[in-house]
Amino acid sequence: MSSSRTRLDVLLSEAARGDRVALARLLSVVERGGEPSRSLAGLAYRYEPPYTVGLTGAPGAGKSTLTNRLITSARKGWPESGRDPEPVAQAAVLAVDPSSPFSGGAILGDRVRMQDHATDPSVFIRSMATRGHLGGLALAVPDALRVLGAAGFPLVLVETVGVGQMEVEVAAAADSTVVVVTPGWGDSMQANKAGLLEVADVFVINKADRPGAREARRDLEQMLDMSHPGSWRPPVVETVASTGEGVDHLWAEVSRHRAHLRTSNDLGRRRRDRAAHVLRRVVTAVVLDQVRLVADGEAFARCVREVDAGSLDPYTAAERLLGDGSAWGGTGPWHPGGA
Amino acid sequence: MSSSRTRLDVLLSEAARGDRVALARLLSVVERGGEPSRSLAGLAYRYEPPYTVGLTGAPGAGKSTLTNRLITSARKGWPESGRDPEPVAQAAVLAVDPSSPFSGGAILGDRVRMQDHATDPSVFIRSMATRGHLGGLALAVPDALRVLGAAGFPLVLVETVGVGQMEVEVAAAADSTVVVVTPGWGDSMQANKAGLLEVADVFVINKADRPGAREARRDLEQMLDMSHPGSWRPPVVETVASTGEGVDHLWAEVSRHRAHLRTSNDLGRRRRDRAAHVLRRVVTAVVLDQVRLVADGEAFARCVREVDAGSLDPYTAAERLLGDGSAWGGTGPWHPGGA
Repeated sequence: MSSSRTRLDVLLSEAARGDRVALARLLSVVERGGEPSRSLAGLAYRYEPPYTVGLTGAPGAGKSTLTNRLITSARKGWPESGRDPEPVAQAAVLAVDPSSPFSGGAILGDRVRMQDHATDPSVFIRSMATRGHLGGLALAVPDALRVLGAAGFPLVLVETVGVGQMEVEVAAAADSTVVVVTPGWGDSMQANKAGLLEVADVFVINKADRPGAREARRDLEQMLDMSHPGSWRPPVVETVASTGEGVDHLWAEVSRHRAHLRTSNDLGRRRRDRAAHVLRRVVTAVVLDQVRLVADGEAFARCVREVDAGSLDPYTAAERLLGDGSAWGGTGPWHPGGA
Repeated sequence: MSSSRTRLDVLLSEAARGDRVALARLLSVVERGGEPSRSLAGLAYRYEPPYTVGLTGAPGAGKSTLTNRLITSARKGWPESGRDPEPVAQAAVLAVDPSSPFSGGAILGDRVRMQDHATDPSVFIRSMATRGHLGGLALAVPDALRVLGAAGFPLVLVETVGVGQMEVEVAAAADSTVVVVTPGWGDSMQANKAGLLEVADVFVINKADRPGAREARRDLEQMLDMSHPGSWRPPVVETVASTGEGVDHLWAEVSRHRAHLRTSNDLGRRRRDRAAHVLRRVVTAVVLDQVRLVADGEAFARCVREVDAGSLDPYTAAERLLGDGSAWGGTGPWHPGGA
């Protein structure tokens, strides 16, 4: 373990010096999970996390094209930081598709998707899948973000495909979350409108040159009139990603949101909430993993036979299998909910 | 606890003597969860479980009407047991709606739904919800079935509303699972066809007097041609629940399935699998409950602050919060998946 940690330390130094192969290998370590990824987390969490912008929205909304354009705008720097903003030295894109079994190996696909930046050494693009990562993408992505932070990236865009619970959760774990819709979006995302409203810091109506853009905006503004939590009202930006129209404006709004987070101290609060969320996830994942081990054991099989035979009820069996829980951070004997 | 157990013992004896009020109170204990429901499980799991028939299908397929009719057929007895089958002395219906916060209190609703049996003392009808039950309906329903078994019911029909994952899981935990479709069902249940195919022991095309019944049957038979697991091919029965047409035939097929389970010894295997499934669920639920306790504690808050400050990674934090797992049925120190 300590030798693997030394090896990871070396890879991390190389990645921080701009070695993309080293960085790619580190992200594969995250994806594969297990002991090496935990050792890597032990190193990576020491560094400042990058500023993360999450993009989510229904498939076909043009997120990849938009992300591609957004990098160009982002590289010019944060507009709110003055007339001549300092350029962002390097940026990374994590493309996350929970439904896909493929991952970082899909380099060609990545290059095609983000062709404007394929040859730009200061832009790093990577697809992510889970493979064996304990806790799945919901933990692999935060870990990957910390690795990118440790490698010196000040900015990461996280693009998720789809608007399922997992995709929205991943995008919502960003500092600024951009929800991408298109004219006529209402029908396709009916079921998830409330969830998207809750996580959006900025709304984008992409393909805004198509009919229905005005109605989409009216829809969104009405929803926002009814309920936007806190002091930040998510702006609604119109873009045409295929031509780049509106993308600088979108970046300016993301930048304005970042400035708001900083001045309101919401950034610190968000990051603490996120740390709590990640820790809760890790604890749950570790524990469920343990349940799998318990359920594979001979003691479990014995209990099943007894429950089946009517000589034991499942609650008493669980109590017997789990012990009295005294090793559980001193919370004492377990007492299930509702008791 | 032992006095509450004595009280439960008394209620159970009363319920077994036909006291419906006592039985209703016991099922409320199950719904509310907590310590009393665990004590009740300790009593109820000693008895033979009832034979359970699960009915699931999309809302609007006519499941309530069908269930109502099916009780009438069922009360005549199991056809495969001879020319003059012995009548089933009493039967219960559990109507389960995971999306509804309401429960057993909705007696009027139950009576309206099952009006043919509202005044029949040998038919017991009950809606179920979860309230506080640890593990939700997936555990409350098995517990309720055991309570009904302990109260002397040889047969319980479990009707679930909807074809979501939970509904299908609950219905699939029956001895015989009936999947109810209607002509034109293919469109409405596209997403879940494979899942329904997997759990169905008997298919019913209800409202078979409507156009499209023949196509629905052809659809189902084609699906079954391609894949039906094991030695039992689910029959496809046509019914018109509103008139009662075909319902005796449906009951005969359920009865034939029961006979198949008994002669093939699949009933024992199924029940053992189910005991294992319930036990896994209980262990998971207990443990997740414990996670909630851990996450509410001061040690957790301290770890969050350290993770946020960069002095601790979440995996090391989880290890610290959970101890070394040695109280976990002797499986030794935890080692997460993929390691």
